Amino acid sequence: MKKMDKFEVLQDLMRRRGFAWGSFEIYGGSAGFYDYGPLGASIKRKIEQKIREAFQREGFFELETPTITPEEVFIASGHVEKFVDPLVECQKCGLRFRADHLVEEALNIDTEGMSAEHLTELIREHDIKCPECGGELGKVWYFNLMFETFIGPYKDKKGYLRPETAQGLFINFKRLNHFARNQLPFGVFQIGKAYRNEISPRQGMIRLREFTQAEAEIFFNPKDTEHPHFEEVKNEILRLYPIEHQLKDLGMIEMSLEEAVKKGHIMNTFFAYYMAVVKRTLSDIGIPEEAIRFRQQLPEERAHYSSDTWDVEIKSERFGWVECVGIAYRGDYDLSRHIKKSGEDLTVLIHYKEPKIVKRLKLSLNMKKVGPKLKGDAKKVNEKLQAMDEIEIKKLVERLNQIGKITLNGYELEKEDFIIREVEERITGEKIVPHVLEPSFGIDRPFYLLLENSLTMDEDGRVYLKLKKDMAPIEVAVLPLVAKEPLKTIAYRIFRMLQKEGFIAVYDEKDTVGRRYARYDEIGTPYCITVDNQTPEDDTVTVRDRDTRGQIRVKIDELPEKLRELIFGG
Amino acid sequence: MKKMDKFEVLQDLMRRRGFAWGSFEIYGGSAGFYDYGPLGASIKRKIEQKIREAFQREGFFELETPTITPEEVFIASGHVEKFVDPLVECQKCGLRFRADHLVEEALNIDTEGMSAEHLTELIREHDIKCPECGGELGKVWYFNLMFETFIGPYKDKKGYLRPETAQGLFINFKRLNHFARNQLPFGVFQIGKAYRNEISPRQGMIRLREFTQAEAEIFFNPKDTEHPHFEEVKNEILRLYPIEHQLKDLGMIEMSLEEAVKKGHIMNTFFAYYMAVVKRTLSDIGIPEEAIRFRQQLPEERAHYSSDTWDVEIKSERFGWVECVGIAYRGDYDLSRHIKKSGEDLTVLIHYKEPKIVKRLKLSLNMKKVGPKLKGDAKKVNEKLQAMDEIEIKKLVERLNQIGKITLNGYELEKEDFIIREVEERITGEKIVPHVLEPSFGIDRPFYLLLENSLTMDEDGRVYLKLKKDMAPIEVAVLPLVAKEPLKTIAYRIFRMLQKEGFIAVYDEKDTVGRRYARYDEIGTPYCITVDNQTPEDDTVTVRDRDTRGQIRVKIDELPEKLRELIFGG
Repeated sequence: MKKMDKFEVLQDLMRRRGFAWGSFEIYGGSAGFYDYGPLGASIKRKIEQKIREAFQREGFFELETPTITPEEVFIASGHVEKFVDPLVECQKCGLRFRADHLVEEALNIDTEGMSAEHLTELIREHDIKCPECGGELGKVWYFNLMFETFIGPYKDKKGYLRPETAQGLFINFKRLNHFARNQLPFGVFQIGKAYRNEISPRQGMIRLREFTQAEAEIFFNPKDTEHPHFEEVKNEILRLYPIEHQLKDLGMIEMSLEEAVKKGHIMNTFFAYYMAVVKRTLSDIGIPEEAIRFRQQLPEERAHYSSDTWDVEIKSERFGWVECVGIAYRGDYDLSRHIKKSGEDLTVLIHYKEPKIVKRLKLSLNMKKVGPKLKGDAKKVNEKLQAMDEIEIKKLVERLNQIGKITLNGYELEKEDFIIREVEERITGEKIVPHVLEPSFGIDRPFYLLLENSLTMDEDGRVYLKLKKDMAPIEVAVLPLVAKEPLKTIAYRIFRMLQKEGFIAVYDEKDTVGRRYARYDEIGTPYCITVDNQTPEDDTVTVRDRDTRGQIRVKIDELPEKLRELIFGG
Repeated sequence: MKKMDKFEVLQDLMRRRGFAWGSFEIYGGSAGFYDYGPLGASIKRKIEQKIREAFQREGFFELETPTITPEEVFIASGHVEKFVDPLVECQKCGLRFRADHLVEEALNIDTEGMSAEHLTELIREHDIKCPECGGELGKVWYFNLMFETFIGPYKDKKGYLRPETAQGLFINFKRLNHFARNQLPFGVFQIGKAYRNEISPRQGMIRLREFTQAEAEIFFNPKDTEHPHFEEVKNEILRLYPIEHQLKDLGMIEMSLEEAVKKGHIMNTFFAYYMAVVKRTLSDIGIPEEAIRFRQQLPEERAHYSSDTWDVEIKSERFGWVECVGIAYRGDYDLSRHIKKSGEDLTVLIHYKEPKIVKRLKLSLNMKKVGPKLKGDAKKVNEKLQAMDEIEIKKLVERLNQIGKITLNGYELEKEDFIIREVEERITGEKIVPHVLEPSFGIDRPFYLLLENSLTMDEDGRVYLKLKKDMAPIEVAVLPLVAKEPLKTIAYRIFRMLQKEGFIAVYDEKDTVGRRYARYDEIGTPYCITVDNQTPEDDTVTVRDRDTRGQIRVKIDELPEKLRELIFGG
């Protein structure tokens, strides 16, 4: 039997049945934008809800911040400078292209991190031409991928549509730390839109200009990287593809998280714990185990803020392994940048378990000696000494020991002008800039890959979505066996009852019951309720299972509970 | 006892405890943008979920479409032309102002609908000056309130951030009608961001530049405006403020929906039914009955697409009656505009219950007569006749009857060259452009007004949020009576158990239990669980009610069920 192309079947199914399609169709469409139809939006909400619940189970709190953001924020975050792609324009036809893609295709080399000048040179040198019209290409420049707009009625207040939801959380760190009562670690998350003005988006829903993210930012003390609940997940087996294995072509490995940390593949149990959380969440959404792998990003792939990132990839028949979640170690990059740009104190006061006794050098003026020398300035000079930090004091004392004199406020002072003491200080804590671990889910890609992985073609030709039952966009269809009374009225009443009980239900009386079963199988509805001729006699209906096609009889009264158990589990 | 200003108390509470605050604080803020903190976002999600469930109970399906939208869509919808405010710039200091506001303040007149020229004239005539520096004001122009951006790497593809979520639904009408299998009425909805580049936003969360909407578009046959379930809601009593009562200063009236339709205050039961849905949804969120009224918009207030709109207003101590939901009758405005601009067929084929017999004029060539005259062209001319619609045929026949001849394809033809017949046709249906009723919820305003209406100040000075229990951002707090073992461990275990059971729970051991109760009362937590010295003995804990401050003892095992009952009802 000839295998059909899943992608084509799925694209057709998605459009025809109301899952998703390219936006603005009646106006010719616009690449990089997708609409979620009635069935698609239902699944999308369920994916978001599963991730929300997973984060909430970890005690993380959700926030919501604006998508439009003044440029100051993205100057601080580095996005104005770094969130760019190299672009080149054809001098003849005026079309614009990704310069790196043209060079990579023509020369088969890696251009990651190349300057605009270097790319321009390569294009000149190798005489690379416009792929559309063969014309001469101009100079390469870096194009910022953030959508720009202006806030208010003037043209001087530039804003960007956020390229990630994360910054809205970082800039609120002070309030969040207050909310967490100064206790690290703590996590917050946001589920919302983010934007990326791709130069030429392709691959359907895989590369969108407007997309949804669910990002958690977990703030922790970098000296404290043991996760308190690691025990609960240490035996979870993951499919890992570490940097070394990619570089040496050693293939993927499967091992428990505990082993992976021990062998140094994963930096610590704190990181490992959240890898387990991500994996379990994807499983909860219904992505099959064998379609999930963790690939460590190569250094040149990493975003500007990251020093280690594991991508969670989902297998696609069409697109290969697709990055769907990133778990990035952002260190103190973002908070430090915002501290610097805003001047705000975004630190956390860490209390030591026991006070530390540290020895410190103290330097003060020997007033008896310098009083006459400095006159009215003695107080000022002494204040300056007291304001100095440890390192500065150390330097001064070293100079006094070596050279015997230093200059302060224009006065030359000698060693005997000072009193140098070593004192013991009791320190109960210190201010630190927390580090950040960020599990960041895309929503649109997992949505597509969930459908692709659920699409099932039985040997008898039946095509249906074998979705995890609680993920189905329509949970139950109520069908009168034939469109006649009293079956119609009973079926409609059951439909309304299930709807009021909170099920996403439909009523359908059109076509033969066989065609209707096929119709609901195709969209993944796990159960069809059929009202047949026995129903008026004993108040029972049949409940048909999508996967097995087996039927059981259930009392109408017991339907809600039975369905809840079947769909959402006990 | 002096009454405190609720607004001030609430603003402080919202910021201090993590509900909501102005965005981008550390960069000096940006008017018109608000952040939802951990507690605020939780309530916001619950409001959205209540509205979602209300729409789903009506059988409406949710969709999700992009916020960035190509300009074609908003040219068609009329927003490029009509979604504008009049603006004027000071020639001296360069500040810009709402011209209508300046004129209204200076002259105390209504400027609704005035042209830019008229406003400019009034400013000249009455010598209105810049309110900031007293400088001369320039010419008034209309400023579009949509945020602009460009899609892709060129500057020729303009896009706007949508000013309402609705258009994303209208332009998908064809697919939606297919999904609904050509059966009117049907409803769809969308919950998402919308944007309005206000010139100078004020009033905190009441007037935002970025906000969330939940809009349903209900497509119906304008000849069929009886709602099938009106019986279920007809006795609902609403507080109404119809146009006439506003114009004649007659005050509000309270009456049942049935009476309001009978007396002509509400156009039909279809409209009235959804007014009940909106009211019940607001009640379900926890807005008190007495703080809700329905005010019919005056003709000059209506948006360009609406021919009748009822605003649902919620009472605010600070801001008076605030528009929170609009129920707009959009007629066929939007679909007709999109049909015209896109050329797509956005109609629905309505099947008559019984076929209609209509009489039609038929006009064809009398071939025997005209054959020789027209030669090879006879066929062409006849085809032209057959392609004509009823009105064209009617005109031709009239001319033939009056003048006796007409010219077709350059040939002069007389009455006897034609065969004119009247035939009976059996018509089973017709294509119509559906009309639209739109209940459109804001989310941010009801959020603020829910908090304002929930803020309670007891006579003994206790200040707390008397939120509807299922709307509380933290549903349960678990407290060891004192921070000692074994109470701490038991309490923490209970907290984790409740978290896993799906409750939004916190664990708190800091401060005296009295202060902790006050802490959770303040943010509206309906129940505090306290682990005391009796707990290790008999596995019971106390459950304290926020409103009554009464306590009951409950077995730990029975907590989840008991709390579910207490918070979410039986």
